[in-house]
Amino acid sequence: MQQASMRITAAEHEERCRALLAATAGRSLAGIVLFDAVNILYFTGFAFIPTERPIAFVLAPDGGRGMLVPRLEREHAARETGIDTIAHYDEYPGRPAAIQQLPALLKQMGIRGDRLGADADGYPWIFGYEGPTLPELTGMAFVNVQGIINRLQAVKSPDELALIRESCKWAHLAHVLLQRYTGVGVTETSAALRATQEATLVMMDAIGPLYRAQSLYKEGPGAGYRGQIGRNAAIPHALANNITFQPGDVLVTGAGCPMWGYNSELERTMFVGEPNQQQREMFGHAKATQEVAFEAIRPGRPCREIDEAVRAYYERHNLQPYWRHHTGHAIGLRYHEGPFLDTGDETVLAEGMVFTIEPGFYAPDLGGFRHSDTVAVTAGGIEIMTYYPRDWEHLIIPV
Amino acid sequence: MQQASMRITAAEHEERCRALLAATAGRSLAGIVLFDAVNILYFTGFAFIPTERPIAFVLAPDGGRGMLVPRLEREHAARETGIDTIAHYDEYPGRPAAIQQLPALLKQMGIRGDRLGADADGYPWIFGYEGPTLPELTGMAFVNVQGIINRLQAVKSPDELALIRESCKWAHLAHVLLQRYTGVGVTETSAALRATQEATLVMMDAIGPLYRAQSLYKEGPGAGYRGQIGRNAAIPHALANNITFQPGDVLVTGAGCPMWGYNSELERTMFVGEPNQQQREMFGHAKATQEVAFEAIRPGRPCREIDEAVRAYYERHNLQPYWRHHTGHAIGLRYHEGPFLDTGDETVLAEGMVFTIEPGFYAPDLGGFRHSDTVAVTAGGIEIMTYYPRDWEHLIIPV
Repeated sequence: MQQASMRITAAEHEERCRALLAATAGRSLAGIVLFDAVNILYFTGFAFIPTERPIAFVLAPDGGRGMLVPRLEREHAARETGIDTIAHYDEYPGRPAAIQQLPALLKQMGIRGDRLGADADGYPWIFGYEGPTLPELTGMAFVNVQGIINRLQAVKSPDELALIRESCKWAHLAHVLLQRYTGVGVTETSAALRATQEATLVMMDAIGPLYRAQSLYKEGPGAGYRGQIGRNAAIPHALANNITFQPGDVLVTGAGCPMWGYNSELERTMFVGEPNQQQREMFGHAKATQEVAFEAIRPGRPCREIDEAVRAYYERHNLQPYWRHHTGHAIGLRYHEGPFLDTGDETVLAEGMVFTIEPGFYAPDLGGFRHSDTVAVTAGGIEIMTYYPRDWEHLIIPV
Repeated sequence: MQQASMRITAAEHEERCRALLAATAGRSLAGIVLFDAVNILYFTGFAFIPTERPIAFVLAPDGGRGMLVPRLEREHAARETGIDTIAHYDEYPGRPAAIQQLPALLKQMGIRGDRLGADADGYPWIFGYEGPTLPELTGMAFVNVQGIINRLQAVKSPDELALIRESCKWAHLAHVLLQRYTGVGVTETSAALRATQEATLVMMDAIGPLYRAQSLYKEGPGAGYRGQIGRNAAIPHALANNITFQPGDVLVTGAGCPMWGYNSELERTMFVGEPNQQQREMFGHAKATQEVAFEAIRPGRPCREIDEAVRAYYERHNLQPYWRHHTGHAIGLRYHEGPFLDTGDETVLAEGMVFTIEPGFYAPDLGGFRHSDTVAVTAGGIEIMTYYPRDWEHLIIPV
């Protein structure tokens, strides 16, 4: 008998640690220290809010695991991970200095040598933290393993894919509600908050006991506009500023839902009232370039080629003035991850990678035109994980 | 005639750049490169969402200013800052590599020498970014200026204090609504979302045209519990998990509101029904230790002494087992900043510094007990910027 759960298993966390040790085996590392909150979640299942109080996960070549946490996270870390060796300090800055507990922990774990793998050369100076680099602290040289970790995180397991699919469902609900509550005279903030609140409450009623967000940014499904409304829609990453919807507006939406830390991305171009001919054309290009990418993706091809195929479409139709960004990015525990569907990325596509597909067209006099769908690379091509309508007839706000 | 505005002025951004140059004048720096989004907001007024696409602000010793942005942020950066020298690259990773535009920008600005000041030794490897360190990229040695920037940011100007006071107002509203909507049988998520939505819509109606959040985390006022409910309240930084309120629960709240990037902090311990005698005692200690800190703060004292005074209270009353963290942290554009009211922090208190005052008591069998108020250091002592009731009689949820 097994209790329903959506959580990544302890066995998978252990497998990830083994994979990291295998991937770094040739580098003569005395051990590996990870500071990044997403990396620590990935390798241990421990979700926390990073602050000025340094937290570190330590992995020894023999598979031994240790953590350094502030006093206030000790019980939390012990409960969320199966790690025996949890060292703590009282406080940051503290007296003695908090970070001085790290060399003591390394020593306790038998980690000594010339080279220390880590995801940064010291705890980053965030939220007022100031402290020594790892070489200053340990006498060992810093070997950056973040690139290796990026490669491991890029290929998702079946359980990770299942969480991203689940994320897509609740983001879909939030987007349906966003479209429903958007209308002439309504404000951006009102439509977004109403959709987000209703989707979150429904999700909590449906899967609340199985759900954890484990996100720094969001606590459930959400949908909104980030200010990409009307003329503002021509700025790809605008910030929300509570615009009131008017007939003729072109809208670019965004919806997502953290699911045990995993993210998906759903974005749609919508119209307040019927689009004019020029707008329908731009919309058609955004949709068509997505399809170019959908067709191009398959295991074995370099990421570069997908973006080249999309850029060739822009050139064929003389659309370069409307180009602002590449085709898409990987997504998972981070809402942007490597590799990138970009002309400069030689990474070879592999089954289990997950990408956003979101080529965009931005014209100051017409608006912004971009859909984003989340797709997984399969043995034969792709699974499109998002399933919101993509044609303009379904994306009109009645006036 | 002057249009109403809450925004930090361009003159203040320029004054901040001059202060940074003055504070680093003795360090023989060829120039200063800043990557951190909060630092860039502080020195230029440009708010953006950091991603794998590197963004940098460059300050020359003669006061010359430059920025490096991706193509998709070019218009946004030009509109939001008065900076003339804005270099851009097409995309990340890009071909040629995006970050190679940075040495070109430095050269264009006449920045050459042996030592380059920066807030990190290269663009941080976030969201899949991978790239060279500044020394690898420029041949100049990296001099970390983040500590100097922390010291500048710690002392707030009158306009900054005004934004933090404004933040306190709307956080107060969100907290009033949170208390109103919390009740037996209601869920954490429901009370928090309802309060947050209503406070945000009211604020948008009141100051919408003057308002920008400029925050990575929030788009308006919000209040909630972060799972610190009942027995969970004994874990200081728990994450929200949709608990249903029950009679006897001890609650620790949190409310805030980003205001042109500036934050405040308001937290209260509340009770579902009347607290018992032991709980009233713990509550009394939390309130009394806040008052110890309020009395202790004045310009000229080291931060250390405030925490020592609070810790002496714990010792006097044999309360050390319930201690988990120091008295408070500075707050501003970052929701945690240095300096810290901590036994290990020798920084001398100065007029214009803003701190949270939040000593806490955590007992697994009773709950967590912590208020947090935001205070500014004045010439004669402190201004308590938050003004929510602190006594338990006003913090009871009726059953």
